[in-house]
Amino acid sequence: MNNFSYYSPTYFDFGNDAESHTGQLVKRFGGNKVLIHYGGGSVVRSGLLDRVKDSLKEEGIAYVELGGVRPNPRSGLVYEGIELVRSKNVDFILAVGGGSVIDSAKAIAAGATYDGDFWDFFSGMHPEVALPIGTVLTIAAAGSEGSPDSVVTHEDGMLKRAMSSDVLRPKFSVLNPALTQTLPAYQTACGVTDIMAHLYERYLTNTEDVEVTDRMIEGLLLTMVHEGPRVIADPHDYGARANIMWAGTQAHNNSCGVGRSQDWSSHTIEHELSALYDCAHGAGLAVTMPAVFRYVMKHDVKRFAQVAVRVWGCQMDFAHPERTAKAGIDALQHFLVSIGMPSTLEELGGKEEDISKLVEVLFHGVEQGGTIGGFTPLDTKDCAAIYRMML
Amino acid sequence: MNNFSYYSPTYFDFGNDAESHTGQLVKRFGGNKVLIHYGGGSVVRSGLLDRVKDSLKEEGIAYVELGGVRPNPRSGLVYEGIELVRSKNVDFILAVGGGSVIDSAKAIAAGATYDGDFWDFFSGMHPEVALPIGTVLTIAAAGSEGSPDSVVTHEDGMLKRAMSSDVLRPKFSVLNPALTQTLPAYQTACGVTDIMAHLYERYLTNTEDVEVTDRMIEGLLLTMVHEGPRVIADPHDYGARANIMWAGTQAHNNSCGVGRSQDWSSHTIEHELSALYDCAHGAGLAVTMPAVFRYVMKHDVKRFAQVAVRVWGCQMDFAHPERTAKAGIDALQHFLVSIGMPSTLEELGGKEEDISKLVEVLFHGVEQGGTIGGFTPLDTKDCAAIYRMML
Repeated sequence: MNNFSYYSPTYFDFGNDAESHTGQLVKRFGGNKVLIHYGGGSVVRSGLLDRVKDSLKEEGIAYVELGGVRPNPRSGLVYEGIELVRSKNVDFILAVGGGSVIDSAKAIAAGATYDGDFWDFFSGMHPEVALPIGTVLTIAAAGSEGSPDSVVTHEDGMLKRAMSSDVLRPKFSVLNPALTQTLPAYQTACGVTDIMAHLYERYLTNTEDVEVTDRMIEGLLLTMVHEGPRVIADPHDYGARANIMWAGTQAHNNSCGVGRSQDWSSHTIEHELSALYDCAHGAGLAVTMPAVFRYVMKHDVKRFAQVAVRVWGCQMDFAHPERTAKAGIDALQHFLVSIGMPSTLEELGGKEEDISKLVEVLFHGVEQGGTIGGFTPLDTKDCAAIYRMML
Repeated sequence: MNNFSYYSPTYFDFGNDAESHTGQLVKRFGGNKVLIHYGGGSVVRSGLLDRVKDSLKEEGIAYVELGGVRPNPRSGLVYEGIELVRSKNVDFILAVGGGSVIDSAKAIAAGATYDGDFWDFFSGMHPEVALPIGTVLTIAAAGSEGSPDSVVTHEDGMLKRAMSSDVLRPKFSVLNPALTQTLPAYQTACGVTDIMAHLYERYLTNTEDVEVTDRMIEGLLLTMVHEGPRVIADPHDYGARANIMWAGTQAHNNSCGVGRSQDWSSHTIEHELSALYDCAHGAGLAVTMPAVFRYVMKHDVKRFAQVAVRVWGCQMDFAHPERTAKAGIDALQHFLVSIGMPSTLEELGGKEEDISKLVEVLFHGVEQGGTIGGFTPLDTKDCAAIYRMML
């Protein structure tokens, strides 16, 4: 196990009607003037936004609003949010929505306290300070409600990039599983897939002696395998929604990723798909993961066989462990298809001719002959081969 | 799943030589004058205390010292610590040791900011404020390095009681697995047992729809089953020590216990054993858990069968699930004995004649005809029967 530090100071308020505590939570964590950041009309139509505003009013907390965050959040709205924060003397960012809204809120929180262009933080600079952030989560997926991470797409070149810093961990997150009960099955399945990807990308490691985090990851994967089909069969199943919601937070707060190298190839390779085709991130991951795993499997057959046995119930073939490893990847793909996820590039709207463009954008900013990836380095040829495996 | 809030803001610095960061960490979390609290001579002999002092000196942080904490920490030293904190204007408590030292430090931290008797907090009052606490952990067991809990024994009546409050969560904890490599096998096994008890007591629940925390608990139990025998076979195995250390923290920070009722009967019943016989808490738990589980098993055979199958690899007997449940408890006990733990009251120094005294002290403060326990209520007759099952 590697040395590490771990700090996850987010306060979680979990359960039915938890959003009614939002005002008290903002006050507890020092907010006086709030920017409420949200996406489309669903939080308006459902009445959630009004309930959140009522809760702020009850505590005498002033607010301004900025809606319009779209999936795969864009830089334009972040610039707008930063301006609004500065002109209205906002001191607290409240994200009401899913991962895209929270990620956009994090970019605004970091950018508002910085003299330069916020995009510097998505180009390698580390944010040391940010405005405090709170979240009211409406979809279990990205884990952004408890993570130090944010992913934003710059409209100039459609570059989808990430930043990470402990100052971006929300001060509080309101997790009410009932708020996710109205999500369509497809979006729910995308969330399940994203959570599983956060677990798989941490599972793929070169670090020795990581049994504890292996076992924690496997436990959370088994939860998704059990609860995913339940929630697809009955979207109003509160219990299944609750299990998925807490698993989604635990999957990405990094308690199960510490002390080990991690991969993130699937996320990196997928980012170009959702940037180019504007598909859902989870749907892109459902196509990407099996392709990446089949391509890199040979570098650690034992690890892929382990997850096949422990999570997917495959029989270990000691004479041909690569068969067990492959059976586990097949089982993952069958599972994802069974909950309604795509399995090919075509289903995302892609075609073979796009591959050179996908690889080109993927390696934008990577030095000539360089590689991406963590578990095993992947160069342009590798990534082109992986994209071809998605056809 | 029940509604819950969860807040675990401890900063963990994990790995080789992490204790050299102690001074920086005290400074980061606002300490200027530290009480270094520790136990017997081992932290002196090993040079750890000197390394911690050097780290404080490097940051220009003043300190006073109070050693002498013993296993099952006593009220007398807590009163002494509170006096010392007040007379020397200490503003930060630094525990260097295991769970007993940390628990004693928490009691001092809460008592020093309170006008009344600190024991009020162990008699039902909730501490709302406490001095900040940091820890340098030397044994993986109690989980106190990341928990809101403290257990102290009052010398007047040898009452062993607990308090809990989020203000008692340490600001930081230094976790260096190498510091545990010199622990004797017996103490190491006691730690493994304590960690497993924290998991089992959370696993025994009446709450429906808790797959995610079930799976997290099972993953941590499987880690202990794998790493426990490794570390008993080779106490210097850093990897095994590291896995046990992170598992111990995760087992008791309550991330796997939220949203569900919990039990704690084994801990409560054991507390009287370690209070009366001054045995190690873990050793007491090794004797207590199988007795309690066999006694209460009938109230949820399915749950006991589930852990038997998922953790102990027992075959599910659908016609006779109680056989599977019992096989799982037998497997737990065999495991504990295999790592050197006792299985009878006699091995702890107890005898049948003590049982009435044990039950009497156990129910001190409980109203006439009242019960203890969480999973299922236990009255004096039940507890006497459980103690008899340990013979």
